Amino acid sequence: MIAVHIERGRLSLRRRPRPHGPPGFALLRVLAAGICNTDLELRRGYYGFRGTPGHEFVAEVVEADTPALVGRRVVGEINLNCGRCEWCARGLGRHCPRRKVLGIVGHPGAMAEFVTLPEANLHTVPAAIPTEEAVFVEPLAAAGEILDQARIPREATVAVLGDGKLGLLIAQVLAAHGSRVHLFGRHREKLRIAEAAGVQAELAGARLPRAAYDRVVDATGSAEGLRAAVAMARPRGTVFLKSTVHDAVKLDAAPVIVNEITLVGSRCGRFPPALRLLASGKVRVAGMISERLPLSRAPRAFRLAATRGALKVLLEAG
Amino acid sequence: MIAVHIERGRLSLRRRPRPHGPPGFALLRVLAAGICNTDLELRRGYYGFRGTPGHEFVAEVVEADTPALVGRRVVGEINLNCGRCEWCARGLGRHCPRRKVLGIVGHPGAMAEFVTLPEANLHTVPAAIPTEEAVFVEPLAAAGEILDQARIPREATVAVLGDGKLGLLIAQVLAAHGSRVHLFGRHREKLRIAEAAGVQAELAGARLPRAAYDRVVDATGSAEGLRAAVAMARPRGTVFLKSTVHDAVKLDAAPVIVNEITLVGSRCGRFPPALRLLASGKVRVAGMISERLPLSRAPRAFRLAATRGALKVLLEAG
Repeated sequence: MIAVHIERGRLSLRRRPRPHGPPGFALLRVLAAGICNTDLELRRGYYGFRGTPGHEFVAEVVEADTPALVGRRVVGEINLNCGRCEWCARGLGRHCPRRKVLGIVGHPGAMAEFVTLPEANLHTVPAAIPTEEAVFVEPLAAAGEILDQARIPREATVAVLGDGKLGLLIAQVLAAHGSRVHLFGRHREKLRIAEAAGVQAELAGARLPRAAYDRVVDATGSAEGLRAAVAMARPRGTVFLKSTVHDAVKLDAAPVIVNEITLVGSRCGRFPPALRLLASGKVRVAGMISERLPLSRAPRAFRLAATRGALKVLLEAG
Repeated sequence: MIAVHIERGRLSLRRRPRPHGPPGFALLRVLAAGICNTDLELRRGYYGFRGTPGHEFVAEVVEADTPALVGRRVVGEINLNCGRCEWCARGLGRHCPRRKVLGIVGHPGAMAEFVTLPEANLHTVPAAIPTEEAVFVEPLAAAGEILDQARIPREATVAVLGDGKLGLLIAQVLAAHGSRVHLFGRHREKLRIAEAAGVQAELAGARLPRAAYDRVVDATGSAEGLRAAVAMARPRGTVFLKSTVHDAVKLDAAPVIVNEITLVGSRCGRFPPALRLLASGKVRVAGMISERLPLSRAPRAFRLAATRGALKVLLEAG
C-alpha cells in the first residue's frame, strides 16, 4: 500500500506492506484523512517523529474480530491505551501512561491506504454525516473537551482567541452549548464561518479587550496569543490552553498570580458528543475544507495546509 | 517619623511627616513589620517602586473614627479597594481594579513608625497571639488562599515545592486543613520546622517524583520550580502558583496541554482564617523568625533577609 512517511523533517510517499493488527484490532481502509497543525509540526521535525502521520480520519472496516463491524464506516479514537491501569478504569484512557497515539507516538497513522486500530477505539459514523465532514470528529472532540473539564454555564460569555481550524470548531461547540461566544481572529473569511454559526466575530486589531472575560480560550498556537488571552481574562478568570504550542512559551507568571487566573491545559476529547454535534447540524464544517487531494498528492497537500490562511486540507482515497 | 524609603533599587531611612488619612482611615503606630520576598524584589527595583514598603505588620491604633478601635492591636488587609465596584460587592476587594496596595502600589507601607489604613481593613489581634507571630497573618492568609480557590478534600495528599517562608506556611495550613502534605525543599533546618507540624518533608534532590500528585503547590519562586511542579503533577492534576516570580517564566506549554494540567495563580487571602489558625496553635511560626531588628536598622535587616537560607526578618518599633 501507499503511505505518507516523515523522517527528519522530510515528507515522502512510500510503499509499505499492508498492516496487520493483533487480536482485538481492526483493519481499516482509509477513506479520508485530515492534516492537522500537529501533523505540520511532525513534518517540521518535532518529537523527532519518524513514520506515518495521520490521526484525523474516516475509514471502512475491512477486517475485524467483531463481524458486525466489517463494512462499517468509522472514525477512531487516537489513543491506544493499555485498558488495565487506573486511568483506563476511570474512562480516561487518553491519559494512560502506556498509551500509543495514532500517527503521533508508536502507532502508524492514517495517511496511508490502510491503518489498524483496536476495535474498542472505533465509532460508527451515522449515514447523515458525509465522509469529508466526519474527518472533523477528532478535532471537534478536542474542541469539546473544554466542556468536560470545566463547568461552563449555558448562557456564559466566552472569548475565543484564534480563528484557525481549532478556534472555529471551539467557537461552534460553545455556541451549540448555548454560550455567547466572542471570537477574535485575523481572517475576515474565517470569521464569517463562525458568524454563520451564530458566533459574534471580531477582527483582532492591535487592541484586544483587557480584563473583560471570565472565560477565554486560547486557540492561537502562539506565545503572544497565550499572553493576550491572559490579559483578556478578568481576575479569577479561566484561560483554556487549546493551542498546540510545542515550543517553550515565555509566560509572564505575574499577571496569572496577581489576577489569580486559572490556566487549563486541554487536549483530546470524547468522540460521541462530537458525532452528535455533526449529525445534528449544530456544528458545520463543510465550509472549513480548503482542499481535497488524493493521498498520492500528500506532499502538495502538506504545502497547502501550511499556507497562511489555509483551513482543513483532506487526503482522500484515490 | 522615621520611614524606610526605596528608590531606584536603593534603600535608605528618611524623616517623613506623620501620615494623616482621610475620613474612614485609622492612624496606626507600627509595632512590627516583616520583610517579605516581594519587599526584596521592590528593593531590587521591580515595578519601578519608589516609596515606603511594608505590607506585613502589627500596629496599635492611635486615631480612628471608631472610638472602640483606639488602643487596639491590629493587623491590616493590604488591598485598599474602592468599596463600590462589582469585585468589592463580591467580597473580592483584593481584585478591585482601582485598588491601592499597602507598601506596593500607591499607598505608603508599614516600614515606618506610623501608617494609615481604612478602618475596614483592620482586624483585632487576639491576646493569645504575640506581636512577632501576628506579623505572619498576611502571608498566612496568602498561604490559605489556595483553600478558598479550590476544593481540596481534607485527606488529600498535596505536594508543596519550596521550603521558604511561604512554602512552610502553605505546608502548615494544608496540614491543619487535614491534608497529607509532602514538602520538598533544600534546607534541612527549614524542613524540620514543617516536620514539627506533622508534614512529611523531603530534601529535594536532583530527582523529584514525576506524575505523582493530583495537587502540587509551587512555592519556589523560580522558573525551574514551576517546571518541576508541572512535571510532578499527574494528568488532569492541579498546580498552584504561589511564587512571587516577577520575571517572565519560560513555561513549556506542551506538558500542561498534553497532561491537561490546571495551573491556578494564587495571591492574597482572607485574614480571619489566618488569625484563627495562629490563635489555635495549629500553625506555628515562632521558629520561622530569623532576626528581629529595630526599624532604624532596616538596611541591615534587608541584607539579612536576602541571605540564602534566611527566614522571616522583623523590623520592630524602637
